[in-house]
Amino acid sequence: MINKLISKIKATGAPIVVGLDPQLSFLPPKLLERAFSEQGETLEAAADAIYAFNEGIVQAVADLVPAVKPQIAMYEQYGIPGLIAYKKTIDLCHEKGLVVIGDVKRGDIGSTSGSYAAAHLGTVKVGEKEYAPFDEDFATVNPYLGTDGVKPFVDVCSSHDKGIFVLVKTSNPSSGEFQDREISGRPLYELVGEKVREWGEASVDASGWSNVGAVVGATYPEQGKVLRKLLPKNFILVPGYGAQGGKGSDLVHFFDEDGLGAIVNSSRGIIAAWKQEAYASYGAEGYADAARAAVLAMKEDLAQALNR
Amino acid sequence: MINKLISKIKATGAPIVVGLDPQLSFLPPKLLERAFSEQGETLEAAADAIYAFNEGIVQAVADLVPAVKPQIAMYEQYGIPGLIAYKKTIDLCHEKGLVVIGDVKRGDIGSTSGSYAAAHLGTVKVGEKEYAPFDEDFATVNPYLGTDGVKPFVDVCSSHDKGIFVLVKTSNPSSGEFQDREISGRPLYELVGEKVREWGEASVDASGWSNVGAVVGATYPEQGKVLRKLLPKNFILVPGYGAQGGKGSDLVHFFDEDGLGAIVNSSRGIIAAWKQEAYASYGAEGYADAARAAVLAMKEDLAQALNR
Repeated sequence: MINKLISKIKATGAPIVVGLDPQLSFLPPKLLERAFSEQGETLEAAADAIYAFNEGIVQAVADLVPAVKPQIAMYEQYGIPGLIAYKKTIDLCHEKGLVVIGDVKRGDIGSTSGSYAAAHLGTVKVGEKEYAPFDEDFATVNPYLGTDGVKPFVDVCSSHDKGIFVLVKTSNPSSGEFQDREISGRPLYELVGEKVREWGEASVDASGWSNVGAVVGATYPEQGKVLRKLLPKNFILVPGYGAQGGKGSDLVHFFDEDGLGAIVNSSRGIIAAWKQEAYASYGAEGYADAARAAVLAMKEDLAQALNR
Repeated sequence: MINKLISKIKATGAPIVVGLDPQLSFLPPKLLERAFSEQGETLEAAADAIYAFNEGIVQAVADLVPAVKPQIAMYEQYGIPGLIAYKKTIDLCHEKGLVVIGDVKRGDIGSTSGSYAAAHLGTVKVGEKEYAPFDEDFATVNPYLGTDGVKPFVDVCSSHDKGIFVLVKTSNPSSGEFQDREISGRPLYELVGEKVREWGEASVDASGWSNVGAVVGATYPEQGKVLRKLLPKNFILVPGYGAQGGKGSDLVHFFDEDGLGAIVNSSRGIIAAWKQEAYASYGAEGYADAARAAVLAMKEDLAQALNR
């Protein structure tokens, strides 16, 4: 699966993931009002409005970027209707040819991780039939439980041609609380990074890149530099660009000499661009065009940083 | 919420959680066949059969135990229909007066953790209306992202009278890979344990016990002993009894001198008891009665261990 992502990055010239993390406040008021007038102020209405919002975004950016990353928490908070919108969003993105990274951050003990891996990347058997319940292309995985919690995901990467990104150094302010703690003179995130390399050796694509990657926040460029070296054949998914403070110039060291090896996520910086001063002229109704403009600006920012 | 759990533990005399982690192979064949004949070999049929199975178990054990712990991965693997069965199971258990611990192991950066906390413990606003999408009483939480990932859950514990159990030392074989690594001479799980104590101070119930507890596997009794001392006012949720190898005698040190402070989970040891030699005489159709007998045996095992 990493090969598919790489070829799409090359085709678009944009190592960019659009984070589909909709909040109701990101939606044009009219879109929400329409859903409420049809279905009342219900979870179903919220979910339908979110899906309609996503449709606009996906339509506007599908030719520009290789991948999207829906954050399942934003859908799960609207219960079953929200999760239906999550699944419909995945299907829509696949129709548009986009790689879908499910930001699910699952992780459990072995057999239970196997169920999560089946839910999101693999298949589940019901009698003689087999189903792919959510069917993302990649999923994010939490490493706290160690190898036996991650291995079922790696197995599915190999058996179903999928990929994962394991949390190594997250973008949030308190990520250092545990992740930076020194163990035999090296921070925990480096040990996790080493394990990612080891786990990844079990699922390598034809390009030599592994289907097992790492999540490293744009807000920690120095750590990104270290991890890029530690993980020469593992892609890095980089959240935290834009709204969380990461800039294009911070991101150079997440990439290798060929300009590969990383893919940068922006969520609200793109999908809620119309609410920023720079894109205010698009207005609420032009939210999708504003998102397209924000992707083009991000592409330019990254290209400039990588060309320097 | 911890007070409610404590009073139910005292009323039943059983510090036991029944893990509702159904696999299709645990179901009496006839139950599954009936679902398949009505709906075909579909995700809907699997989910309905699982719910019907849970109904039997819950009916049989509701008067014996304070709490149940559905493992969401076992439902999520059947997609949307599976998650509907998860939600119906929560509602059923609430009708029967049981405390529901959602074993969801969620955790993300701050704002996103807030969405998970709303999904599982809190409420979400849609226009002027407010909904509690999944509405468990407790949820399990992954600490790898640090304080800002956990705090939104703690906030909801206080605002909505709920509780959480944070993964500290998990029951699986490779849990030590990161959790046991030494940081300034102490294992990571102790540092996480200290944070649990600190986080828990923000949400203390009238009994003096915190709504923020820890997950410590029955398979690691020595670590349980250390963490019991480190966490004098935080409950410990103890998975790994039975099928994973933990015994009653291993569990003594998870409890305090009053026999409080811990609640022990058993999943397949109870819900799939009918498949064990000891309960084979119940037969497949007697799976619920076998589960009841297994709960009574576990209660006796724990009581003997605690009285020694």
